[in-house]
Amino acid sequence: MGRLLSEDHVLGLIDSFFPNAADSIAVGRGDDCAVIRTDKNLCISTDLFLEDVHFRRSYFRPEEIGARALAVNVSDLAGSGAEPLGFTLGLALPPKADSEFLCGILRGMAGMAAWSGISLVGGDLSSAERLHFCITVFGRADHPFLRRQAVPEDVIFYVPGTPLGLAALGLKLLEEKGRADAEGLSPRAVAAHLRPEPCLGAARRLRSFAERHDLFQRIGLMDVSDGLARDLPRLIGKNRGASIKLENPDAELLRHEAETGESAFKLMLSGGEAYGLLGTCPKSFFSDLQSDLPETCPLGLVRNEPFVTVNGRILPPDSGFDHFSFASAARVSEE
Amino acid sequence: MGRLLSEDHVLGLIDSFFPNAADSIAVGRGDDCAVIRTDKNLCISTDLFLEDVHFRRSYFRPEEIGARALAVNVSDLAGSGAEPLGFTLGLALPPKADSEFLCGILRGMAGMAAWSGISLVGGDLSSAERLHFCITVFGRADHPFLRRQAVPEDVIFYVPGTPLGLAALGLKLLEEKGRADAEGLSPRAVAAHLRPEPCLGAARRLRSFAERHDLFQRIGLMDVSDGLARDLPRLIGKNRGASIKLENPDAELLRHEAETGESAFKLMLSGGEAYGLLGTCPKSFFSDLQSDLPETCPLGLVRNEPFVTVNGRILPPDSGFDHFSFASAARVSEE
Repeated sequence: MGRLLSEDHVLGLIDSFFPNAADSIAVGRGDDCAVIRTDKNLCISTDLFLEDVHFRRSYFRPEEIGARALAVNVSDLAGSGAEPLGFTLGLALPPKADSEFLCGILRGMAGMAAWSGISLVGGDLSSAERLHFCITVFGRADHPFLRRQAVPEDVIFYVPGTPLGLAALGLKLLEEKGRADAEGLSPRAVAAHLRPEPCLGAARRLRSFAERHDLFQRIGLMDVSDGLARDLPRLIGKNRGASIKLENPDAELLRHEAETGESAFKLMLSGGEAYGLLGTCPKSFFSDLQSDLPETCPLGLVRNEPFVTVNGRILPPDSGFDHFSFASAARVSEE
Repeated sequence: MGRLLSEDHVLGLIDSFFPNAADSIAVGRGDDCAVIRTDKNLCISTDLFLEDVHFRRSYFRPEEIGARALAVNVSDLAGSGAEPLGFTLGLALPPKADSEFLCGILRGMAGMAAWSGISLVGGDLSSAERLHFCITVFGRADHPFLRRQAVPEDVIFYVPGTPLGLAALGLKLLEEKGRADAEGLSPRAVAAHLRPEPCLGAARRLRSFAERHDLFQRIGLMDVSDGLARDLPRLIGKNRGASIKLENPDAELLRHEAETGESAFKLMLSGGEAYGLLGTCPKSFFSDLQSDLPETCPLGLVRNEPFVTVNGRILPPDSGFDHFSFASAARVSEE
C-alpha cells in the first residue's frame, strides 16, 4: 500500500501521467481555465462515472477504472464523428485512497488518453466517501454526425465496438459471480464490460465516407450506451419506427442462454454499455458504407410507423433501462 | 414534498428551466455531444461542488445550492476574462430527492445562468448517496487573462466580489451556529458565502481596459477561491515574492474579532471563497485601471524575492488551505 495523499501529491502525480501541451491547447492545466484553439465547431460531452453506481472496485482493477471513465466519454465524441482534443477531470477520492491505487487509475486513464489522442487540460479534485469521476471531453468536428437524420427506408446499422449484449452479459456475470468465475465463464463478455474501446477508427472512416458522398446531413449516428431498445428511439426520433432483425448472437450469449435460459436476443436488445456506433444511412449508399466499414452490421430499416418491431414482434415502449431509477441506486447500472 | 423522480421527469424539468438554444450553440442538449460554434479561443474550466464537502443542505436553500454550483465555475471564466457561452452539468441526486427540491436547485441555477448569459448544453444524471455537482463551463476569450504575467514592482490588486475574508467568516458562522444565528450576527458574511456573484462585469471592464492599452500580456488575473495566501503564489508564480498591505477589514470582520479574538487580518489572508478577481498590473497603468474599475483595491507590489510579506511580516509558506486535506474530508471546506 502506498501512502495517503495530499492535494499537491495528487497534482504532481497527474502531471507525471498526463502531458500538458498539444497543438490545439493554447493554455493547459494550471490557470483558471484551459484555453482551446478552435476554428469552427467544437463538440462537448460530459459523463459521470460513480463508484457503486457505474462500477465497483471489487471487480475493476484501478487501471480499468481510469481507462473506462475516459473511454465512455470518448465514445460520445466517436458518436458525433469528432476528433478528440481535450478533457477535464472532476475527481473525488475517498479518504483511504493511496498513491498506488491512484497511480493505477491515472495510468489507465493516461493510456486511454494517449490511445485517443486527447489531452487532460484541467479539472478539480476533492475528497468524498466514494470514488467519483466527472469527465468532460471536447473534440473538433467541422460536420458533426447528429441524431434524428433518418427518413423512412433508411438502413439502421451497428458498428461494433463489441457485439450487442456482450458487455451487458459481462456486467451481469461480474455482479453475480465475481471476477474470477465470470472470466472463466465468459472472458470476452467480461473484457467488453471492463475494457470498452471507443470506436474512433470507425468514426473516422465514417467521416471520410460521409465527406466523399456529401452525406453529413443524411447519416444519423450515436454511440450505444444504454442498450439498443433505449437508444434506437433517440437515434430515429420519437415519431419514427423501425423494423429490426436481430441475428447471430455472440457465442458467449448463446452459451449463457443454454445454461440459464436467459434469452440472448433480450440481452442484445436491452443490454447497455456496448459502446458501438448506431447509425442510419440512405439505403442506396449502404453497400458503399459496408465496403468502407466491413465490420458494419445491418439491423433493419426505419419505418414511418410509431412503433419498433424486433424479429417481427412489437417492442413494448418501456423495454429500455432507466439507469436513473432509484430502486437500483445501490447497485451498478448501465450508464 | 413533491414526488420522487424518474430520469425522464428530471430531464423534463431541466428542459423547463433551461432554454436549449443560443447563437453560439450549433447543437444543444440531446445528442452525443453539444456542438459549439467558435472562431478562436475557448476557455474551459471544471469544478466539483459536493454535498458535505463544499456545502451542506442544512443551511443552504436549494436555490442557493443551484446558483452557487454554477457561480463558482463562472467565476473561473471571469478570472480568464472570458465571455460565458455554455456549460455541462454532471448531477448526482440522492434517492430521496424530490421534485420540489430539484426544482429549487434548477431554478437557482437557471437564474445564475440567465444572469451570466450561459447556456446549459448537456450533461449526465445519476443517483448517488449525496448531492454532487460537476460543472464544466466554457467561454470565449480572444485574449484570455493568464496567471504568471507579473514582473517585480507590478501592482497587486483585488476587485471584489466580496471584501476579503467575509465569505470565510460566513462559512465559519454557518458551520458553528447554524443559519438563523449566523445571519443575525453577520448577515453580509453569510450572504457572501451562500450567494457569491462572479465578477463578470469587472472582467469585461478589465478586458476593455487591456484592449485599449494593449496590456493582455502584462495583466495577470485569477479568481480568488482558496484565499489570498494560497492563491497569490499561483498568480505571481513560484519564484516571485510580494509585499502586501492589508487594511480596512470589513466591519463584520472587526466585530467578529472584537467578540471572539479571531484576527480579522487572518480571515482576510487565509479565508477562501471570496470570488473576487486577484490581479497584477504594471505600476504605470494602475491609476488608469482604477479610473475604469473604481472598486479595485491595491494590495501591494510584486517583489523579486522568494517570500511574501503581509503588513511587514513574512508569511509562512504553509499558511494556505489544503482543501483536499483528508483530515477535513467530513466537514465543509473551501473549494
